[in-house]
Amino acid sequence: MLDKFILEDILTRALKEDMPQGDITTDNLIDDDEIAKAVLVSKDEGIIAGIEVAKKAFQLLDENITFEENVKDGDYVKKGDIIARIEGKTKAILKAERTALNLLQRMSGIATKTHEFCQKVKDLPVKIVDTRKTTPGLRYLEKYAVRVGGGTNHRYCLSDGVLIKDNHISAAGSIKKAVEIIREKIPHTIKIEVETETLDQVREALEAGADIIMLDNMSREMMKEAVKIINKKALVEASGNVSLETVRDIALTGVDIISVGKLTHSVSAFDISLRFICG
Amino acid sequence: MLDKFILEDILTRALKEDMPQGDITTDNLIDDDEIAKAVLVSKDEGIIAGIEVAKKAFQLLDENITFEENVKDGDYVKKGDIIARIEGKTKAILKAERTALNLLQRMSGIATKTHEFCQKVKDLPVKIVDTRKTTPGLRYLEKYAVRVGGGTNHRYCLSDGVLIKDNHISAAGSIKKAVEIIREKIPHTIKIEVETETLDQVREALEAGADIIMLDNMSREMMKEAVKIINKKALVEASGNVSLETVRDIALTGVDIISVGKLTHSVSAFDISLRFICG
Amino acid sequence: MLDKFILEDILTRALKEDMPQGDITTDNLIDDDEIAKAVLVSKDEGIIAGIEVAKKAFQLLDENITFEENVKDGDYVKKGDIIARIEGKTKAILKAERTALNLLQRMSGIATKTHEFCQKVKDLPVKIVDTRKTTPGLRYLEKYAVRVGGGTNHRYCLSDGVLIKDNHISAAGSIKKAVEIIREKIPHTIKIEVETETLDQVREALEAGADIIMLDNMSREMMKEAVKIINKKALVEASGNVSLETVRDIALTGVDIISVGKLTHSVSAFDISLRFICG
Amino acid sequence: MLDKFILEDILTRALKEDMPQGDITTDNLIDDDEIAKAVLVSKDEGIIAGIEVAKKAFQLLDENITFEENVKDGDYVKKGDIIARIEGKTKAILKAERTALNLLQRMSGIATKTHEFCQKVKDLPVKIVDTRKTTPGLRYLEKYAVRVGGGTNHRYCLSDGVLIKDNHISAAGSIKKAVEIIREKIPHTIKIEVETETLDQVREALEAGADIIMLDNMSREMMKEAVKIINKKALVEASGNVSLETVRDIALTGVDIISVGKLTHSVSAFDISLRFICG
Amino acid sequence: MLDKFILEDILTRALKEDMPQGDITTDNLIDDDEIAKAVLVSKDEGIIAGIEVAKKAFQLLDENITFEENVKDGDYVKKGDIIARIEGKTKAILKAERTALNLLQRMSGIATKTHEFCQKVKDLPVKIVDTRKTTPGLRYLEKYAVRVGGGTNHRYCLSDGVLIKDNHISAAGSIKKAVEIIREKIPHTIKIEVETETLDQVREALEAGADIIMLDNMSREMMKEAVKIINKKALVEASGNVSLETVRDIALTGVDIISVGKLTHSVSAFDISLRFICG
Amino acid sequence: MLDKFILEDILTRALKEDMPQGDITTDNLIDDDEIAKAVLVSKDEGIIAGIEVAKKAFQLLDENITFEENVKDGDYVKKGDIIARIEGKTKAILKAERTALNLLQRMSGIATKTHEFCQKVKDLPVKIVDTRKTTPGLRYLEKYAVRVGGGTNHRYCLSDGVLIKDNHISAAGSIKKAVEIIREKIPHTIKIEVETETLDQVREALEAGADIIMLDNMSREMMKEAVKIINKKALVEASGNVSLETVRDIALTGVDIISVGKLTHSVSAFDISLRFICG
Repeated sequence: MLDKFILEDILTRALKEDMPQGDITTDNLIDDDEIAKAVLVSKDEGIIAGIEVAKKAFQLLDENITFEENVKDGDYVKKGDIIARIEGKTKAILKAERTALNLLQRMSGIATKTHEFCQKVKDLPVKIVDTRKTTPGLRYLEKYAVRVGGGTNHRYCLSDGVLIKDNHISAAGSIKKAVEIIREKIPHTIKIEVETETLDQVREALEAGADIIMLDNMSREMMKEAVKIINKKALVEASGNVSLETVRDIALTGVDIISVGKLTHSVSAFDISLRFICG
Repeated sequence: MLDKFILEDILTRALKEDMPQGDITTDNLIDDDEIAKAVLVSKDEGIIAGIEVAKKAFQLLDENITFEENVKDGDYVKKGDIIARIEGKTKAILKAERTALNLLQRMSGIATKTHEFCQKVKDLPVKIVDTRKTTPGLRYLEKYAVRVGGGTNHRYCLSDGVLIKDNHISAAGSIKKAVEIIREKIPHTIKIEVETETLDQVREALEAGADIIMLDNMSREMMKEAVKIINKKALVEASGNVSLETVRDIALTGVDIISVGKLTHSVSAFDISLRFICG
Repeated sequence: MLDKFILEDILTRALKEDMPQGDITTDNLIDDDEIAKAVLVSKDEGIIAGIEVAKKAFQLLDENITFEENVKDGDYVKKGDIIARIEGKTKAILKAERTALNLLQRMSGIATKTHEFCQKVKDLPVKIVDTRKTTPGLRYLEKYAVRVGGGTNHRYCLSDGVLIKDNHISAAGSIKKAVEIIREKIPHTIKIEVETETLDQVREALEAGADIIMLDNMSREMMKEAVKIINKKALVEASGNVSLETVRDIALTGVDIISVGKLTHSVSAFDISLRFICG
Repeated sequence: MLDKFILEDILTRALKEDMPQGDITTDNLIDDDEIAKAVLVSKDEGIIAGIEVAKKAFQLLDENITFEENVKDGDYVKKGDIIARIEGKTKAILKAERTALNLLQRMSGIATKTHEFCQKVKDLPVKIVDTRKTTPGLRYLEKYAVRVGGGTNHRYCLSDGVLIKDNHISAAGSIKKAVEIIREKIPHTIKIEVETETLDQVREALEAGADIIMLDNMSREMMKEAVKIINKKALVEASGNVSLETVRDIALTGVDIISVGKLTHSVSAFDISLRFICG
Repeated sequence: MLDKFILEDILTRALKEDMPQGDITTDNLIDDDEIAKAVLVSKDEGIIAGIEVAKKAFQLLDENITFEENVKDGDYVKKGDIIARIEGKTKAILKAERTALNLLQRMSGIATKTHEFCQKVKDLPVKIVDTRKTTPGLRYLEKYAVRVGGGTNHRYCLSDGVLIKDNHISAAGSIKKAVEIIREKIPHTIKIEVETETLDQVREALEAGADIIMLDNMSREMMKEAVKIINKKALVEASGNVSLETVRDIALTGVDIISVGKLTHSVSAFDISLRFICG
Repeated sequence: MLDKFILEDILTRALKEDMPQGDITTDNLIDDDEIAKAVLVSKDEGIIAGIEVAKKAFQLLDENITFEENVKDGDYVKKGDIIARIEGKTKAILKAERTALNLLQRMSGIATKTHEFCQKVKDLPVKIVDTRKTTPGLRYLEKYAVRVGGGTNHRYCLSDGVLIKDNHISAAGSIKKAVEIIREKIPHTIKIEVETETLDQVREALEAGADIIMLDNMSREMMKEAVKIINKKALVEASGNVSLETVRDIALTGVDIISVGKLTHSVSAFDISLRFICG
């Protein structure tokens, strides 16, 4: 269940962007009362995410529209599978179509991509997590799609997770000092993560009592070494240009978490089309 | 020059999304007055778009920040090229970094992808245009990035371009009737486009006086035939799953315009990183 | 059918403007559950536009209100004609009354004024179109009212129609150059209009391949000459201080389109009153 | 001095309405750095209001623009008078022109109309006041323009003035009862006004202790009689279809205040044009 | 009846603030379809205000939720009293709980505090009124709560009441001059209040014709003297650090109105808890 | 440094609420160009928080205003201490005064209250933290004020901290099961907190691996016992009606964290006044 007040905000903005002055073709050719039936059909293979979003897009233009889901978020669909059946005002269907699809396709693309990453490591004790490299304005939907695809979320934003980087360390003087200061000041509900690029930094972070140690762009050998050094005393996150090709090898180094920017920043839209049907 | 009042709206929303309650790491470790220098460095090869957007993101957090562009929108950069030099409050740089990059990388990804498509057909009299398959909330920026990459925009939204599809035709009775009705009602500044799937429809659209005829998912042979039938009496737009592999062949059929959803719906972020520098 | 998400935005703002802290008279004197009946009565003669807007205003304050339309947008009403019957919470009727009427009266005023212009030329092959001289914030409703009154819309805004004026021409060097540049860059769905003040400019615009040539503030003789020169090779739009007195003579010059700022910038509210009724 | 935070809100909405995707003509033909000079010239005769609004419209697109006022709000201008001189980015001038003029022309139209009404009664001890029949979204600017024109404002909205009408009276049982109840409940800073249609109601309102008695649509004879009855014990407001023809006779009945819907609901735009100048 | 369009605006903002990315505990542990019953129970003693606000908070997350009020705004409740019974989606109840309570507790705290003040003077002809010292963003709800508690509102905001202070007086030259100027310019529906600190100022204000004279931080003796001087020719308002201890003595000086900042600026939340129940 | 884009949003809303139609007294009596000097003076004793907020309020109405801070956030001030000196447009000072003070007084009230709690336990190894019982719309400012007062923040909102309560436990079946499920699904950056009311629940939560165990409304004896059971294997948070009287005894039980709703839900405004000064 996505929160209605956020969905409506995103969708209303999207509809205004696509129709500041109505749909000039549809408004002039289709009767207000004309009713149509349509289906959302998958033209791709993968995981669906965002059905509720699509549904709400149509409902915002015709509150009495019927939207019957044939699959649900997280289901694996094949080409030709029917995702949902829609019946309502033709005008509403035509006007909301693009907005509904733009979001559903993007979210399903993210869920599918996440699923692929997860599949590569499904027998290993590792989590695939997302990053803050999401589309501005759509983070809520994109992080949801990652979860639908089997991934887990990293921190949502700068306000709710600590990630100590180079600049923070130099400002504080040392990793130890930075962790000390931050531990004193942040909510006790939040863990502390430190970004490291060398094994020395890994050791320093560990000693400083970091809850999570990020291994940034390390070679697999270094990662193995780091995992050994950390020895379960902190969570270990691997980060940096992870791809479908490299993810399994990275997982085999023994890290706990692999964060993947690609889950959200370089997604192919999942191909779905809306097809009007007779009778 | 992107319009400031739209930029600020998009960026303010993005910053709020990423920092509803501040940056918990930076706010606790970095002094308000600390100054830093940084560069935006390309880690990819292609066309840059959105420098002004990145600049404004930093300025919204530190109005006195210095942002010196080293390249400009539309320039081709290589790995390692410096895109811009930034000097200002460390806090502002750290807090705006992700928002600036998320947009700059997406826009540059679009410009680069568009450029690739354009290169494939640069010697042919054809235009590569985008679609309405853009990210909800970011259409203004994404359509701009398409232009930076050498493409042209299709209609911006449902309000400003006519595209007569199946449903509109059945509602009106025939293509001829649909075109007639719509021509009477729309602004005289807007052309009429009809979507066709068969050569019969092409002929009908032509007779009806359509200004633009869209060939939807036709084979190349059909396209050639359609181009011949239309014979310059209307603009011809090819549409439907156009890829880098197929775009040139499609262009060679003689169509005037090729619309490509991929320019915006399936984009890889252009890799750019922000690097702090000493002195 | 006006788009609900835009109506609600305009009306919510209007209601907030008129009731930031409630209706001090009604809130203190009328019971929450009191029900009343009322009618909207025309006290004027002309074309009604905006019934849906008035209806929505009342519904925003009482979602169960009954609003029965007696006429529909575009109907010609006389003094005393009942436009709609309303039954619902007295509080809602009293509080929404002014907002509903302010919009309905303005929209009907525009529709009526447009109708008067159209009547003057109804036997001539010319279109009466509006301009961008609309009330900031209400363009969607005002352009709709123009259509209801029998007029046609000019471009909606600066984003969706090209109008090349003096400054653009000097920047480009010549009309020809300006048209050339712009044709290359704009969506293929948009026509190019050039504003001209002399017959030389008309000729230049025609040669440049302008789709529409605007005759700005020309005398009727010049217009006739211009129409002759253009000779159906472009659409011809007459513009500049058109009044009910001059519109027919202008139409007789043979222009295709007459744009009239008065349709929206100098409108008399159409007199409508809300009257409570017994039983 | 109009409040900046309200001005910016109204103007930003207006600019977005007119340029959701930029100015397609200007963005493609004018260089970012091109500078121009222009003047705002009166093509009408009357009172100017809203110069600050126009100025801010241009500044929102070019913060360094020079806007030199030649006259100030409330000044009487003639045809040909220069209102302001502008120098700044050509793009900003072209893009903000319509928004600036739409507001300036409407506000000056209101100020001028108000001035005309005031002139008719300038030697009489009566005030011309506006109503709530303003344009939704622009009440702040329109009520300001009424003041600039020499008029006075009636209550701003339903929250800040009491006007007891028929429905309120029936709900309470009598005028006396209604006034009693309301006096108990409202802020002590607000006066109580009662709408009356008969002399009996006038007497009842007076006895009830109304601070202001509105004579709604009464004949001049009735008004005179009412004024006599009230005998300075309450303020007397005449209301209902007041025109330039009738306003003086109404004033001569001895009423204190005349409210005029026409000041804002049926205004002709004051003709002003923006003219680019050389050198 | 609170205005729905304002309630929804305040509540939507509150919910977004508390759940920008959902409720991480509830979203992961509770089924979408799980239904629960709960009660709002008073853990305090006093006046309830804001039931409608709490109800709407739950409804925004589950439009089919049942919210049965057991008491109504203005009722006096004791510890253990049930305020309302709720039945609906468990998720909605858990997610809206805090937002509903934060507002209901604050509003009931204000109503209760107001009630205490009113009780102290209930046999005296004096009104307890609030001030503009309300929580930014919540003035509508807080002023409503004051009324529920038996108090009356002072002016709502700077736009709808005149309060002439020192600076205004010096700018005008004298109280007399200030009153004269302002009377000419403001709506005739608004009374004029003058703030005074000395008996001379009181006399001056009275002579100037002030409708209301505020005695700012005067001793009780001065107040009595002022009341005598004013002698019913203007309303008298006492102001300045009024407490439950001093309010009755102040009232006994004979002032008409006592304004109390504490009603809204220093309120203890009224303790209310939401308790889930079985069966 | 508070984030400007959030400050401006809160302040703009506050100013609109207090001045939807300007300041009727000031706008009519004070010249646009009049300049004044004023000071913010403490009339209370405690910790100041929110100076930056007050400053921005004045700057939003006069961007050239001088606002010289005499103390900074976190400083302890006494009655009579000058907090800041202001010089700028009289109009801006008068119009922003109330908005600036309403926020500054509330924030300083929170900081002062927090400071009092912290002082009670300053020699003990315990943290005083806030709750989600903040004013809707102002959480960002109120949580900041808690930090200024020496407290620490609990989770900011439902999205960024896990708190497993009764309902979550019954839905999952047991504490153990609930913790297991949630650990799998949430970001690895977030700790898991479980609310307990009995020592059995404490043991269960500990075994389940909760990171934080909340002791809800337990007696001090139970708390001591719980602390013993937990034995540093999890953080211990005491919660429930903590007061200045009880906080030290609670701290002495050995808990790590004490959360106090009173820090934000029942705050007395810190008395500060704005005084105009000569020369």
